[in-house]
Amino acid sequence: MEPKLQKQIDFLIEIDQMKNILRQTLLADGSRRENDAEHSWHLAMTAMVFIEYASPDVDLSHVLKMILVHDLVEVYAGDTFAYDPAAAEDKAQREEDAAQSLFGILPAEQGLLYYSYWKEFEAMETQSSQFANAMDRFQPFLNNTCTGGHTWKLGHVKKQQVLTRMDPIRRYVPALWGFIESNIDTYCKRGIIEQ
Amino acid sequence: MEPKLQKQIDFLIEIDQMKNILRQTLLADGSRRENDAEHSWHLAMTAMVFIEYASPDVDLSHVLKMILVHDLVEVYAGDTFAYDPAAAEDKAQREEDAAQSLFGILPAEQGLLYYSYWKEFEAMETQSSQFANAMDRFQPFLNNTCTGGHTWKLGHVKKQQVLTRMDPIRRYVPALWGFIESNIDTYCKRGIIEQ
Repeated sequence: MEPKLQKQIDFLIEIDQMKNILRQTLLADGSRRENDAEHSWHLAMTAMVFIEYASPDVDLSHVLKMILVHDLVEVYAGDTFAYDPAAAEDKAQREEDAAQSLFGILPAEQGLLYYSYWKEFEAMETQSSQFANAMDRFQPFLNNTCTGGHTWKLGHVKKQQVLTRMDPIRRYVPALWGFIESNIDTYCKRGIIEQ
Repeated sequence: MEPKLQKQIDFLIEIDQMKNILRQTLLADGSRRENDAEHSWHLAMTAMVFIEYASPDVDLSHVLKMILVHDLVEVYAGDTFAYDPAAAEDKAQREEDAAQSLFGILPAEQGLLYYSYWKEFEAMETQSSQFANAMDRFQPFLNNTCTGGHTWKLGHVKKQQVLTRMDPIRRYVPALWGFIESNIDTYCKRGIIEQ
């Protein structure tokens, strides 16, 4: 087989491990934790459904590519819980190392392209990556509202932490902010998000 | 909340059930059956990785949208095993009914758009949908090669059935046909695919 094709097949087999990387978020029915592959698909659907609320310069095609690739580094670096400050400390270095190894499996040019998608998503500087990040905050928020605020309880999360975490939605997809804000209020009143 | 936004949120919650629709294909590590959400993500990655082998008129952006949506009907219609002729008999009607119900949750215009993606994928007439279908044959084939030919054993599948099932790869993405053909030969020799 062509060495190039072999590298691509090796990569597709390696990333199958995304199906075993568990996140803290539960499925909407609360039955179990969601994994990275499921999250990435649901997130891509969220971006497709809400693209009409994005700023006009956002390129959905580019958003989808970034989203499909954005969590791949977790195959080697593991998932970092959004509300765990200690784990966040060395996240950047762990994920950079993982990106080098994982995208290094691909033919060089393609590996660099996927690395660039991941870096662009992480930097949140372009309009498309800002929208993609806002969607990445929305999807687990939505599943939290279906499961009694599961990860907020788990992390003993305070209102200000949720507001900070959701801020890309307020800034980049303001049409969705009412939904976020009213749910934060509801879960604060129920004592599930701490004041 | 805006009725339109409420419909979109209802849809995003409803399709979370994709994470519970099990396919016959196993994860690459053989540990368990893959679900539709995982499959859709892995398939989208397969299309991204192999887009260079597609005919030049194939539009990756359109392919990704079709792929992300193509199995949604299974939320209501269930997964139909590719090598079960009896289940295939009423598949079209079950899935048509499911499509009407599921895409009907969305605002009308968006529902029609997603319905059109699904129909285009199913009809396999446009070049983009031919490539998307070829990828939809490749991904479970690849996972089969990682798991000792699991679904071929399960379905007591004959060589001609696999050749027919994989034919869109031969026709539309011939660069990948050598990989398919040599694996079919190998699994025939091992008696896992029946002559």
